[in-house]
Amino acid sequence: MKNTLISEFLPLNTVSINDRFWSPFMERIRTKVIPYQWEALNDRIPGAEPSYCMRNFKLAAELTHPELNYGVPKDTGHAGFVFQDSDVAKWIEAASYSLVWHPDPKLEQTVDGAVDIICNAQQDDGYLDTFYIINGMNKRFTNLKDNHELYCFGHFLEAAVAYYEATGKRKLLDALIRYTECIDNHIGPEDGKLHGYPGHEIAEMALARLYHITKDEKHIKLATYFINERGKSPLYFEEETKRNGNDFYWKDSYMQYQYYQAGKPVREQFAAEGHAVRGVYLYSGMADVARLTGDRTLLEVCEVLFANIATKQMYITGAIGQSAYGEAFSYDYNLPNDTIYGETCAAIGLAFFARRMLEFAPRNIYADVLEKTLYNGIISGISLDGTAYFYVNPLEVFPEAAAKDNRMRHVKIERQKWFGCACCPPNIARIISSLGTYIHSLNTDSLYTHLYMGNEAQFTIGGKELFLKTETLYPWEGRVDSTFTAPSGAAFFTYGLRIPGWCQGYTLELNGEKITPEVQNGYAVIKREWKSRDRITIIFDMPVVFVETSPHVRETRGKAAVMRGPLVYCLEEADNGKELCRLHLGTPKGYSVLHEQDVLEGVTVISFVGKREKDWTNNALYRIMETSVLEDKPLRFIPYYAWANRGPGEMTLWVNK
Amino acid sequence: MKNTLISEFLPLNTVSINDRFWSPFMERIRTKVIPYQWEALNDRIPGAEPSYCMRNFKLAAELTHPELNYGVPKDTGHAGFVFQDSDVAKWIEAASYSLVWHPDPKLEQTVDGAVDIICNAQQDDGYLDTFYIINGMNKRFTNLKDNHELYCFGHFLEAAVAYYEATGKRKLLDALIRYTECIDNHIGPEDGKLHGYPGHEIAEMALARLYHITKDEKHIKLATYFINERGKSPLYFEEETKRNGNDFYWKDSYMQYQYYQAGKPVREQFAAEGHAVRGVYLYSGMADVARLTGDRTLLEVCEVLFANIATKQMYITGAIGQSAYGEAFSYDYNLPNDTIYGETCAAIGLAFFARRMLEFAPRNIYADVLEKTLYNGIISGISLDGTAYFYVNPLEVFPEAAAKDNRMRHVKIERQKWFGCACCPPNIARIISSLGTYIHSLNTDSLYTHLYMGNEAQFTIGGKELFLKTETLYPWEGRVDSTFTAPSGAAFFTYGLRIPGWCQGYTLELNGEKITPEVQNGYAVIKREWKSRDRITIIFDMPVVFVETSPHVRETRGKAAVMRGPLVYCLEEADNGKELCRLHLGTPKGYSVLHEQDVLEGVTVISFVGKREKDWTNNALYRIMETSVLEDKPLRFIPYYAWANRGPGEMTLWVNK
Repeated sequence: MKNTLISEFLPLNTVSINDRFWSPFMERIRTKVIPYQWEALNDRIPGAEPSYCMRNFKLAAELTHPELNYGVPKDTGHAGFVFQDSDVAKWIEAASYSLVWHPDPKLEQTVDGAVDIICNAQQDDGYLDTFYIINGMNKRFTNLKDNHELYCFGHFLEAAVAYYEATGKRKLLDALIRYTECIDNHIGPEDGKLHGYPGHEIAEMALARLYHITKDEKHIKLATYFINERGKSPLYFEEETKRNGNDFYWKDSYMQYQYYQAGKPVREQFAAEGHAVRGVYLYSGMADVARLTGDRTLLEVCEVLFANIATKQMYITGAIGQSAYGEAFSYDYNLPNDTIYGETCAAIGLAFFARRMLEFAPRNIYADVLEKTLYNGIISGISLDGTAYFYVNPLEVFPEAAAKDNRMRHVKIERQKWFGCACCPPNIARIISSLGTYIHSLNTDSLYTHLYMGNEAQFTIGGKELFLKTETLYPWEGRVDSTFTAPSGAAFFTYGLRIPGWCQGYTLELNGEKITPEVQNGYAVIKREWKSRDRITIIFDMPVVFVETSPHVRETRGKAAVMRGPLVYCLEEADNGKELCRLHLGTPKGYSVLHEQDVLEGVTVISFVGKREKDWTNNALYRIMETSVLEDKPLRFIPYYAWANRGPGEMTLWVNK
Repeated sequence: MKNTLISEFLPLNTVSINDRFWSPFMERIRTKVIPYQWEALNDRIPGAEPSYCMRNFKLAAELTHPELNYGVPKDTGHAGFVFQDSDVAKWIEAASYSLVWHPDPKLEQTVDGAVDIICNAQQDDGYLDTFYIINGMNKRFTNLKDNHELYCFGHFLEAAVAYYEATGKRKLLDALIRYTECIDNHIGPEDGKLHGYPGHEIAEMALARLYHITKDEKHIKLATYFINERGKSPLYFEEETKRNGNDFYWKDSYMQYQYYQAGKPVREQFAAEGHAVRGVYLYSGMADVARLTGDRTLLEVCEVLFANIATKQMYITGAIGQSAYGEAFSYDYNLPNDTIYGETCAAIGLAFFARRMLEFAPRNIYADVLEKTLYNGIISGISLDGTAYFYVNPLEVFPEAAAKDNRMRHVKIERQKWFGCACCPPNIARIISSLGTYIHSLNTDSLYTHLYMGNEAQFTIGGKELFLKTETLYPWEGRVDSTFTAPSGAAFFTYGLRIPGWCQGYTLELNGEKITPEVQNGYAVIKREWKSRDRITIIFDMPVVFVETSPHVRETRGKAAVMRGPLVYCLEEADNGKELCRLHLGTPKGYSVLHEQDVLEGVTVISFVGKREKDWTNNALYRIMETSVLEDKPLRFIPYYAWANRGPGEMTLWVNK
């Protein structure tokens, strides 16, 4: 596929973040989340549900190497979910990223120890999944649909690559290369192999990452096979279910095999369907394979699927997965705010997908979604102290409903310590600790900046090594200052700066002089010879705006959201009292936009005088329509991501116009 | 309790209905529903789920009297729900009512045959429940909480009284008096008896009805015991569950024993909670017992519960039970329109409750609810051809949601033939076929008219026999003409005519002259000597009105309903196209109100030029708020009760203002 725009994100070890907004998040991940999660993986958190994750690995290692003794009784059995292995994989990945930007010998030693235990559990043929090592290897590969073997495999691939890139240590990488060979020996197009693919996708993008290191064609071939075989008739999952007498939970559901995105070949899937996390993980893998193999038809499907999500199924926070039933996409323009699933992992997966689409082309439709998820629907999943988590990220909560309304039984009104199914917390840790590799992308003659935060990046273009240092108070303020350093001399290339979709006006200065470069696909592109001390200042207008939803959407009719820059705001009971449903934005005369450092770890608060519906003169439930009587009411909005950090209470993002 | 207002509804055999609106419903019940249901009860409807109801009775009769042979194999076992017996009870009740206003020897013979089979199943000690007769009598009375023995008992009491009143035949009544004795021998305050009460209420009001015939104090005492014992500590259901190792399905629910309205004594229940049908059946029984025993504290609780429902938990159609979870009430001001349960039986039960409150006092708060349920949320449960039924009565449907949205898995977009759990169809039959006894109530010196329909009523007041003939096209037209006949001479009494709560203006004429009598609690009261040919004409203004919901309600914000008279209207896709969510009422310049005899068996259609939101210029999902562009759009409203009679499609009752 000829595409001169194809670029790659600058790797993590070439970008150093020093940002008022993100550095505290990263530090919380490093100092609180990663240590806490290691304790959790080892069942040492009082009051939290045990993970059993490391215990399973120790037991599997003891079974594999009887000379080992980790002290786990042999008859304990596998505990926790069938995908429990993936938790430590995600933790190793997150910890490895943090080692890149904050070397920490003690943490590295802990990771080394975990890797030793994990590798001790590996079988002679490379197999490495504790559920089957403990429960009986004769059963392995008999339920690819539901038993998450290839999901855990994928997460371990990601961990192995991250650990190798962070430390140079090959132990886990080599183990995973052997595990990949093992899987390759059992699954594939050849006669005698299973013509299967993962029930929960991730291995596709993970294999692409492995290929990036190994350049071994077998690795990208396996990823491609997983994608191309998916949904083909006769359906592997159907055959497997019959052959092995497996359950099929979605038999009576309208989703059927589309729960797994496996009801039809991927090139015939034009709307995001089924389990949302699986969906965006698959689409991310498809984008990787399309880019690495030059498969244009696959790229086109990715474009269609991305557009379907971004223009028909995505919440304004970047949350996806409208339905608790199946934790799934539902249908176009169905965006309920209170019964939403909106899993943190799904928003993270959407960021993965957006990042991969950006590697095809710098288009702000992708970067806008990437930014939207990061600043809203992902970090809403973690408390500001870094110790509690949301799976589900509602846009409207009403405590009495959370207690009494079964449609919202999945919605928590306060973040929880840890979950038995602990996918989200380590997933947040791995994306935030690898944030450096989401900022700039590079191809042979261009550098693009997709996200704005304080950072220093190092890159080589046209044979020259350059540095780009960015200083900004974004997203609280719209000014971004960037300065190049070119120690080996000036370099001629195109620098593209993203103009965010939310931005209605901006000024751009090059070395103090206003310029108006061409804007291509939402990127202001400046083609010139860049030399040391070249300085770009871009100032995005950041007014308070009210945003409304397409007329196709039923749930937000008559309502608008308050936004400023990339941040979506919300009203909380703590600031605005009860019955948020009675508040109206009205037509405010002015806005107070004030950064309050002592509020919610420092947020810019938006206040203005809106309206509130007055009580009726009687307590009737219905009456003949009258002109509504609205009284002035000061409204105070906080960024959505920071909600639910001050105890339980009502919250709403959409407010009556 | 001194209450000179206490009245009783005129019995069914003294009121003859001849009404353009209701007579066709009654005829459909008589000619289609009752025969169809008899076939259904005997498993003779091709394509419908079998009922097994009569088969269970035949089997129980064969087991009781081995000389009988109905041809049911002995080893068949009980089939269908544990409460399957109640279906034939409801059918006998409905059929008996229809025999009152339309004698039919063939139907009476069929009922007699059913009664014979049922009575043949009765045990020597009076017990009569096929589930335990077939499955083992040693288990009876071991799960009052869930096994519906006392529920079936209650329905049979109602059937027995109705059958006796219709035919004078005592066979079933005597059987039920014996069954009542059997229950009295096992349940009650005495040592050695179970201190229990029904898990699904109805026996309370049924015993009150039995008492009305027998005047046997034991009968009202048992009803009173059921009510007073309910929810007392130690909790009978809890003890029973432990003692017999029963399941407790609601253990982890916030409802706990309040699912059964048994979590606390009834006099401490101030909001309607739990299973909605059970709730209103209990409250109806409480009202009966309060009236018959003069228990003022019980009456006060009934008043509080009625107000809670009518002013905080009732849909504008009279539907109740907001939540599919537990088919239950939820909490104040929670009125979702698409995920509603709104069971037909619950609206029927609310009509029972309202009717009983009216017997305490003619207050239009009660009569308004009675009328609202009858004209909207009850008859929406049956198709216009009388052959298909809704359990669930949504106020908004969107076919794609019904297919894909699990929150609405209970919602059907087309009425169904018959249900495995067939409570609603025969319940509709019994209320519509007994409609005559919901119109007028009488006490020693007053007659009150609560509902307006064409009918002729006979009553005795002050020793004089009178007739009151009413002619009207209500609810299509607001004029009601009533004429007295007093063959035994004039009588002095108060006549109260209900002024409906929806009515904003009316004129009243007595013998052609306008009068303005006093209005007490919503009733225009005329105290005089009434003689033959005295003629009252009341003309209610019946404009098209828009009705809105209290600011406490989240779901209908910014919307209004179209009403005319007691009827709530709705928009259907068949008339208005797709995406009803985009339509607005606007500020119409005028309304067309046209009775169309060939539409939906004859309905008054309301049409006017409203508005429709135009498409956005791009296909974005979100945009910075602009002034909405609305275009003119003719809107056509049909009465809500008649929806879903023209194939599947969108429907909404609440429309954007």
